[in-house]
Amino acid sequence: MQGIKIGELKVGQTASFRKTISETDVYLFAGITGDTNPAHIDEIHAKQTKFGKRIAHGLLVSSFISTVLGTMLPGPGTIYVSQSVNFKAPVYIGDTIEARVTVKELITEKNRVILTTDILNQNNEVVLTGEAIVLAPK
Amino acid sequence: MQGIKIGELKVGQTASFRKTISETDVYLFAGITGDTNPAHIDEIHAKQTKFGKRIAHGLLVSSFISTVLGTMLPGPGTIYVSQSVNFKAPVYIGDTIEARVTVKELITEKNRVILTTDILNQNNEVVLTGEAIVLAPK
Amino acid sequence: MQGIKIGELKVGQTASFRKTISETDVYLFAGITGDTNPAHIDEIHAKQTKFGKRIAHGLLVSSFISTVLGTMLPGPGTIYVSQSVNFKAPVYIGDTIEARVTVKELITEKNRVILTTDILNQNNEVVLTGEAIVLAPK
Amino acid sequence: MQGIKIGELKVGQTASFRKTISETDVYLFAGITGDTNPAHIDEIHAKQTKFGKRIAHGLLVSSFISTVLGTMLPGPGTIYVSQSVNFKAPVYIGDTIEARVTVKELITEKNRVILTTDILNQNNEVVLTGEAIVLAPK
Repeated sequence: MQGIKIGELKVGQTASFRKTISETDVYLFAGITGDTNPAHIDEIHAKQTKFGKRIAHGLLVSSFISTVLGTMLPGPGTIYVSQSVNFKAPVYIGDTIEARVTVKELITEKNRVILTTDILNQNNEVVLTGEAIVLAPK
Repeated sequence: MQGIKIGELKVGQTASFRKTISETDVYLFAGITGDTNPAHIDEIHAKQTKFGKRIAHGLLVSSFISTVLGTMLPGPGTIYVSQSVNFKAPVYIGDTIEARVTVKELITEKNRVILTTDILNQNNEVVLTGEAIVLAPK
Repeated sequence: MQGIKIGELKVGQTASFRKTISETDVYLFAGITGDTNPAHIDEIHAKQTKFGKRIAHGLLVSSFISTVLGTMLPGPGTIYVSQSVNFKAPVYIGDTIEARVTVKELITEKNRVILTTDILNQNNEVVLTGEAIVLAPK
Repeated sequence: MQGIKIGELKVGQTASFRKTISETDVYLFAGITGDTNPAHIDEIHAKQTKFGKRIAHGLLVSSFISTVLGTMLPGPGTIYVSQSVNFKAPVYIGDTIEARVTVKELITEKNRVILTTDILNQNNEVVLTGEAIVLAPK
């Protein structure tokens, strides 16, 4: 129940989580957030967009970064300081995406960890890039 | 069903969305993402942390920014380019938070909008600051 | 709102519940339990297993036994003493399964009922066998 | 993404998962399974039972065993052979329960693992005991 402390983390250390994004995921996320943008829940609208079908919310996609940070690397006890994300390509309902988190820099005196956070789809396309700063578990 | 085009947006224009965060929101978000970090779903663990009780996932909190961007300002048709968030204070189950989005800069020739994205709780404490870049609806 | 009392139960009495297992059922169950085993939510992983596609959680499948016990036979007021289950075959997303519960033995002086609990799929294949012991409603 | 193989498992090896059971968990489980037994979703009925308030479904409680088996010990790749559970005490909405799984016996030539599976509440009361048989990941 305790994550990895700063002294045990190493630059280059990596962890990932993979999930097939279901319609359920998108609809529950729309329900929780109230983000009923038709791109996500209106097939008629979605067909008329350049994407051609319903896409997952960008912030739903980015949420899997938190899954890796909070349960694996560094894991329980981690405190989130900041996150930046760049959306590179759409994620469709039915896509299988993998959130990959890698330790980029350790600022031991501040207990601070900088990690790259990328998400790829089943075709190995990068759909999201970003960076997280966290405080390591104590 | 169509958001605000770049020519109709003005610097300083603002919109917000407010919601009381329920245990259901936190548990469903944990379920969708697989982020079962005990800070969110284990009251025994949470009591032993500096927060003292279960907190909402940071990326759940930030999701309400997308609600404003995707349904109000600029609204449907918006394409997300990037988002940065800084977590300033915890959000507890039962807190009422307001996501406020304000147009900061318009780059008309690129159809690009830069917006500040802040989230406050019921005590007017800033729990999150950040910035979004989007393409305006066409 | 009251189930069948021990004096009204008969050996051989039977009841069943049938449901088509949706991706939603599997994903919500993964969310509630935190069981994010890739066999259930990761289509890339699932294709590499001997099952070839995502399967429902075994304990999700067995849950329909409780539906019969708690709402039909014996019904409301039943107290669960024990359950054993043997998993015989996988259940895929989209399968229609039927939980069949049959009274096997009545131990009237202890108000105790022993029931066989089997689950079949749409091809009449037995996917699960088991036995429940319950206290009948009073 | 791969669990622990039989050669790396040891008798006595243990893993656990803890969660505060929310009303959401109980209601979603009722929704998935159709187990609308009033003991779980009808506060008027529940007040008249010996438990005095709504309780979690026994098979919801036991589901957390699968979380440990499928994600930790032995982890992904595990195939469920059988599970027995004995319900010892009720779990109320709001209780924090811990599923503890311990390797009891290894039958290496059959790739088979026998594990004890117990669940305790926040007062260290055993609410469920049981045993699982699984095939270890290959």
